[in-house]
Amino acid sequence: MNLSGLSILGQTRAKAAGPAQSAINPATGVPIGPDYFWATTADVDAAGELAARAFAEFRLWTGQKRQALLHHIAALLEANGPAIVERANLETGLPVARLQGELARTCFQLRLYGDAAASGLFLGIRIDHADPNRKPLPKPDLRSMMVPLGPVVVFSASNFPLAFSVAGGDTASALAAGCPVIVKPHHGHPGTSELVGLLVQQAARENGAPEGVFSMLFGDGREIGIALVKHPVVKAVGFTGSRLAGRALMDAAAARPEPIPVFAEMGSVNPVFVLAEALEQRAEEIAAGLHGSVTLGVGQFCTCPGLIFVEAGAGATRLVAKLASLMAATPPGTMLTAGLCSAYERGVAGFSQIGGVKTLAMVRPNQGAGHAQGGAALFSTSAENFLGNHHLMNEVFGPATLVVECASRDQMLKAVNQLEGQLTATIHATPAELVAGRDLVIWLTAKAGRLVFNGYPTGVEVTHAMTHGGPYPATSDGRSTSVGTRAIERFLRPVSYQSFPDAALPSELMESNPLRLSRLVDGRAELAQ
Amino acid sequence: MNLSGLSILGQTRAKAAGPAQSAINPATGVPIGPDYFWATTADVDAAGELAARAFAEFRLWTGQKRQALLHHIAALLEANGPAIVERANLETGLPVARLQGELARTCFQLRLYGDAAASGLFLGIRIDHADPNRKPLPKPDLRSMMVPLGPVVVFSASNFPLAFSVAGGDTASALAAGCPVIVKPHHGHPGTSELVGLLVQQAARENGAPEGVFSMLFGDGREIGIALVKHPVVKAVGFTGSRLAGRALMDAAAARPEPIPVFAEMGSVNPVFVLAEALEQRAEEIAAGLHGSVTLGVGQFCTCPGLIFVEAGAGATRLVAKLASLMAATPPGTMLTAGLCSAYERGVAGFSQIGGVKTLAMVRPNQGAGHAQGGAALFSTSAENFLGNHHLMNEVFGPATLVVECASRDQMLKAVNQLEGQLTATIHATPAELVAGRDLVIWLTAKAGRLVFNGYPTGVEVTHAMTHGGPYPATSDGRSTSVGTRAIERFLRPVSYQSFPDAALPSELMESNPLRLSRLVDGRAELAQ
Repeated sequence: MNLSGLSILGQTRAKAAGPAQSAINPATGVPIGPDYFWATTADVDAAGELAARAFAEFRLWTGQKRQALLHHIAALLEANGPAIVERANLETGLPVARLQGELARTCFQLRLYGDAAASGLFLGIRIDHADPNRKPLPKPDLRSMMVPLGPVVVFSASNFPLAFSVAGGDTASALAAGCPVIVKPHHGHPGTSELVGLLVQQAARENGAPEGVFSMLFGDGREIGIALVKHPVVKAVGFTGSRLAGRALMDAAAARPEPIPVFAEMGSVNPVFVLAEALEQRAEEIAAGLHGSVTLGVGQFCTCPGLIFVEAGAGATRLVAKLASLMAATPPGTMLTAGLCSAYERGVAGFSQIGGVKTLAMVRPNQGAGHAQGGAALFSTSAENFLGNHHLMNEVFGPATLVVECASRDQMLKAVNQLEGQLTATIHATPAELVAGRDLVIWLTAKAGRLVFNGYPTGVEVTHAMTHGGPYPATSDGRSTSVGTRAIERFLRPVSYQSFPDAALPSELMESNPLRLSRLVDGRAELAQ
Repeated sequence: MNLSGLSILGQTRAKAAGPAQSAINPATGVPIGPDYFWATTADVDAAGELAARAFAEFRLWTGQKRQALLHHIAALLEANGPAIVERANLETGLPVARLQGELARTCFQLRLYGDAAASGLFLGIRIDHADPNRKPLPKPDLRSMMVPLGPVVVFSASNFPLAFSVAGGDTASALAAGCPVIVKPHHGHPGTSELVGLLVQQAARENGAPEGVFSMLFGDGREIGIALVKHPVVKAVGFTGSRLAGRALMDAAAARPEPIPVFAEMGSVNPVFVLAEALEQRAEEIAAGLHGSVTLGVGQFCTCPGLIFVEAGAGATRLVAKLASLMAATPPGTMLTAGLCSAYERGVAGFSQIGGVKTLAMVRPNQGAGHAQGGAALFSTSAENFLGNHHLMNEVFGPATLVVECASRDQMLKAVNQLEGQLTATIHATPAELVAGRDLVIWLTAKAGRLVFNGYPTGVEVTHAMTHGGPYPATSDGRSTSVGTRAIERFLRPVSYQSFPDAALPSELMESNPLRLSRLVDGRAELAQ
């Protein structure tokens, strides 16, 4: 496929106008062509109008038609996998094997959400029958279902150029819900975005989708991104990235004449709690697991464990010693962008200067090893010190983590109480210890969207039961998840029909249940047949 | 019960401090004792701390215990019904029979939401089993359920002193979800609020609920209300009232260091569409129905139909003539407060001065008939004029409505397209006309939360399938409803447990399903047994 550097407007391309910027290979610092032209505000209006027109038709599509569209996107991504992976590798420095896995996950996700659309999983059909004899007034027939919100703007993530990007989870869930999508790609991987965007455009065309069901505008987040969020036809926003950028979108959306929901996943420090018996039995094994989780993908995961609370004692000492030796022996890796790498270096340097913080390992990139090299770093401090310094809760995006030694379980619970909202929280314990330490589980439930037992937070399954979300500031709205089929629910709203004749109802709500959907009828659940 | 005029702080009362204000009988303008003392910011902090502490225990309550609490509140309200209704009648001018009906509805609602808590209707249990043989990596066991958000601040409505007030829908749904509640009562009916608040306090005590599961602070919305919304322990807000006040709460919540969701129901004009064949067959009957709906409760319903679109012709002329005579013959009624009545008078006067608007009926209160008397008003205009003047879409809260004559169906659809978000939209048509006019239904689905066929929008059923919500500005978040069991979902968030041993899971998620809940297991729905 030829790359042109132009934005996608429905089935056409935007004109070359305004400033242009190329991708940069983070490993070498060398630009990669072509230049990517920033969209104009006229392009924003054009994409908005196309999306609004497309929505009028697309929201009436059956779940089966949406499924076919999503499956077709997946098939096109697979057919063009080698080219996509090659370009993504050049633009992000992520290894080819990792990108192949991410592509497979992206396609699995598209198909799963398409299947959810076809099965009506998220339609929430409810029927309350009329009761003409009710006193003092007859009861009318009422039926409700979920319908799509309208056009959704999706901001791509830097760290998942495929799974949280142009055809990633936000796009897949919005399309499954019946919402047109306008993507603002991440500037770190514009070529990958163009490749994928063109395939989504092709799938839309070949599936007879209304023009405007998908557009993609290159450009600066503060200009084009905010203009998209403010556009009156846009009804919701999906975002994965930093807290600073996410909050800017939240504020812009809340200040609109018509405020709209923003679903921003803004990362977290993903605390890990290692209890005494687990330390005694498995200190070295847990250290190895944590090392893998912290340094996976050069630490560039929203679920990277940045805080490790250990119950002080001989086991904790063994864990820290093992982890320090593993971290110190970790070769530096290419980070996603030079900017991100500088931010990581600043964050690590800041940590090492905080009073009471010991630096146990700090890997420096070799001279001449390449650009944007991030080295692993390990710090430790006491719970007392942690409780007295809120800077120690800040996320340092990269392969760094802080061990906090707790003299008592009570101190550990105090630390939990002080934590901000988290995507995940992990407990290493024996099963008996976990049951006995019920307080810890209960307290963490109020702080995180996902609790992991004897595992590691990296690795987010795309399933029905996944929650990839959590109380602010992990996400803008802790009532949502950006991964798993529940992600589709973000883009839906309920509508009730009162006393409608059967023939005028959407087929989802007809009494005979022609689509064979699960329903709540007069308060009783009925399964799909 | 003795009224003291003091706020409720858990199981105690706040001290008398700061300014005080009594209720006023709107029919006479005469104050009704006692004086109600405004809460202080220290009271806000005290209520917040109590609620946070209560949440730690209350969120672990079983659904059965929450059900018992809600049923007990209902029983106490019924036992004290005569005193509550008598006071509410004095404070609001609403007729005794209406208030008796509202009390019954309030108790039905408390019991229905309690039953929903006991049945686990809103728990959304999902289980995805592990697959140790999955390649390239084993798949972990994942289980998710909905958990309560945290303390909720509830702002009472003026127009429903019981059903949308201290123990109304927002409070019932928050308690059913497992969230403590702090109520900011409406200044129009403080005595009713104190009576009901004391009964909720009593029920909490007698059911062994943690202190702070319920508090109630009198005071000014701009001071005490905003202070409550900004309090860090508060995790969500429920509100029913004006757009101005609702938007102020939304803005305050969005500007917090930790933004929180606001569920504000801000009313709407509830358009009604009357098609040609229905007019031909039932013009006078529909006029009578509309008259009843517009003037019910002196027009003080969020679902009062303020816009009536008719297909021009002889039928429309008959409808308008009949409606004009009925409106003109309607005796004025006591409105909820003098302030609301003045606002209504200004709104009606403003409408009558807009170019192209004909005043077809305007009932003036008799001299000496009493204070705060609102008279019915009927206006008409052309669709052309309507399309050219957005002021004609403004809600005038009271017994007034505007008939818009449409020369064509196309003009009617243009008007729909121009409408803001609505709680309801109503269509009068023959069934054949409704099916043939599918476009109208489809367009209205995008604008309103509830579509009514051959009925009237007033009268909001408390059922599973009800949506009392709609796109902004009808509500702050069109993805929510404030009536029906779905209202409980506003105050919940999902949490996933990964690889937990069965004994450490919440009982809702245990493999053996000891609570016999409906679940989604590996993507297949399983019914409660």
